[in-house]
Amino acid sequence: MPIERVAIIGLGLLGGSVGLAVQERLPAVRLSGFDADPAVRQRAAERGLVHTVADDAAEAVRGADLVILCVPVGAMRSAAKAIAPGLSEQAIISDVGSSKQRLAKALAEELPGHHIIPAHPVAGTEQSGPDAGFASLFARRWCILTPPEGADGAKVAQLAGFWEALGSKVEIMDAAHHDMVLAVTSHIPHLIAYTIVGTASDLEEVTRSEVIKYSAGGFRDFTRIAASDPTMWRDVFLHNKDAVLAMMQRFEADLGAMRAAIEAEDGEAMFDLFTRTRAIRRGILDEGQDDARPDFGRGHE
Amino acid sequence: MPIERVAIIGLGLLGGSVGLAVQERLPAVRLSGFDADPAVRQRAAERGLVHTVADDAAEAVRGADLVILCVPVGAMRSAAKAIAPGLSEQAIISDVGSSKQRLAKALAEELPGHHIIPAHPVAGTEQSGPDAGFASLFARRWCILTPPEGADGAKVAQLAGFWEALGSKVEIMDAAHHDMVLAVTSHIPHLIAYTIVGTASDLEEVTRSEVIKYSAGGFRDFTRIAASDPTMWRDVFLHNKDAVLAMMQRFEADLGAMRAAIEAEDGEAMFDLFTRTRAIRRGILDEGQDDARPDFGRGHE
Repeated sequence: MPIERVAIIGLGLLGGSVGLAVQERLPAVRLSGFDADPAVRQRAAERGLVHTVADDAAEAVRGADLVILCVPVGAMRSAAKAIAPGLSEQAIISDVGSSKQRLAKALAEELPGHHIIPAHPVAGTEQSGPDAGFASLFARRWCILTPPEGADGAKVAQLAGFWEALGSKVEIMDAAHHDMVLAVTSHIPHLIAYTIVGTASDLEEVTRSEVIKYSAGGFRDFTRIAASDPTMWRDVFLHNKDAVLAMMQRFEADLGAMRAAIEAEDGEAMFDLFTRTRAIRRGILDEGQDDARPDFGRGHE
Repeated sequence: MPIERVAIIGLGLLGGSVGLAVQERLPAVRLSGFDADPAVRQRAAERGLVHTVADDAAEAVRGADLVILCVPVGAMRSAAKAIAPGLSEQAIISDVGSSKQRLAKALAEELPGHHIIPAHPVAGTEQSGPDAGFASLFARRWCILTPPEGADGAKVAQLAGFWEALGSKVEIMDAAHHDMVLAVTSHIPHLIAYTIVGTASDLEEVTRSEVIKYSAGGFRDFTRIAASDPTMWRDVFLHNKDAVLAMMQRFEADLGAMRAAIEAEDGEAMFDLFTRTRAIRRGILDEGQDDARPDFGRGHE
């Protein structure tokens, strides 16, 4: 049974990209959408992110086979409440949130008896809002589904097929494991980036203008990540607290070891680490998960 | 008095880029070069990174008005020793090293009475070796000169003019301040990137294959930086030990504060930091120090 009607709640970078990708790759699907912000609704209608922008969340999901919540994880519970009156019994309720355990619990509490299959397309940019989305965001990126115990296998397959149609590769995993994996590959990198950019802007010995001018030495990469949506990321750290703290402890211990190596002028320990880390980069390029051109193919002219 | 003959010692990413940039922008300048590795010398000759590849460092610098040492900072002293017999009295001796205080001392000791003006073009990519260089590497990037006390003003102006001709913007500062600024904008970001990539590859709960697959969540940016040349970076941390340790202390304190905010579920503290950091990104884009396109303009198809 193909998915015929999709409702998108939240029309920012992720929601907008889903809408545009569906129109490009699943042209038979009918799309409706809603955003709590009237200005975003208007812009979404202007850009044609979905076919119909509803003025009400429950209205947007009426008749949808698949509802995708594309709001910050901290807003998922209230989004679930808002759509509840409009949901059809057979609809799949999914999302795009970056942390899954707490979210799955909140959705299950708000929408008992519904087919809830949380999902996380591991894709994005530092931009946000209704102008940020684009149709190819999910191409060749992984989308992780975390179906709860007892989920309907046919619905899981339907959702997997939907993401594959948008160009994604799909993996199914346990929500707790998802949260651990993403703590490492996404949450801690964001936390580190936000922190070092904060450290640099608070220095007295080095001016903000100097930090900006000489950012091409490596720092500017961190500022891109640290320009990501503050609400989204605050919610991620609140929701995935335990895994983030566990991974942070490892990182801090490893950083302490590097500090000790620098203090002891132990060049061998540094050289060993700096050599090992190249293998991971090669793996990412071999797997097609990044642009192989130097400097990400950044323009140099 | 224009610079007529330039010698480049070390023909990797930086040395090769200087050679190519000179040929493009200063076609009247005659270029000679040397690298301690015969395979690099051969490749440099094949690519035409300089007009003449010498088989000996002293030979390469004979008759040069400007000698640029483009070797890892830990190899600068022996490079200086090697060129000494061929240097003319009026030649400017400069370099492209990422840390300046210890280096200036080493050069002054090895080449007494010579015109030493250390320099640092803040530009690079994660690639290294004689195939990595390209002519536009320095365009619109800053080059910092750190002339020692008593340096010849005319020589400093000549060197500044040389870098401006290659497309750089030039700033003059004290070596100690340089080392502090670059610790923040370059050295600490590299150390953090190397460390988190190491942390991720050593985990037991998360496989290396998972780290690679889901790296698009932010981690892959760090792996690019952590793919940089290990020898170069080991030397930077050994040479700029004090400033790196001082800045690391600030970063670790700030990271501790973020950990405390997550433990206390203090969403406001997080939101505040995550909002402040966007200003620095805007400054970098306004100053033309990064690609403004989302995701650095990475290919998404």
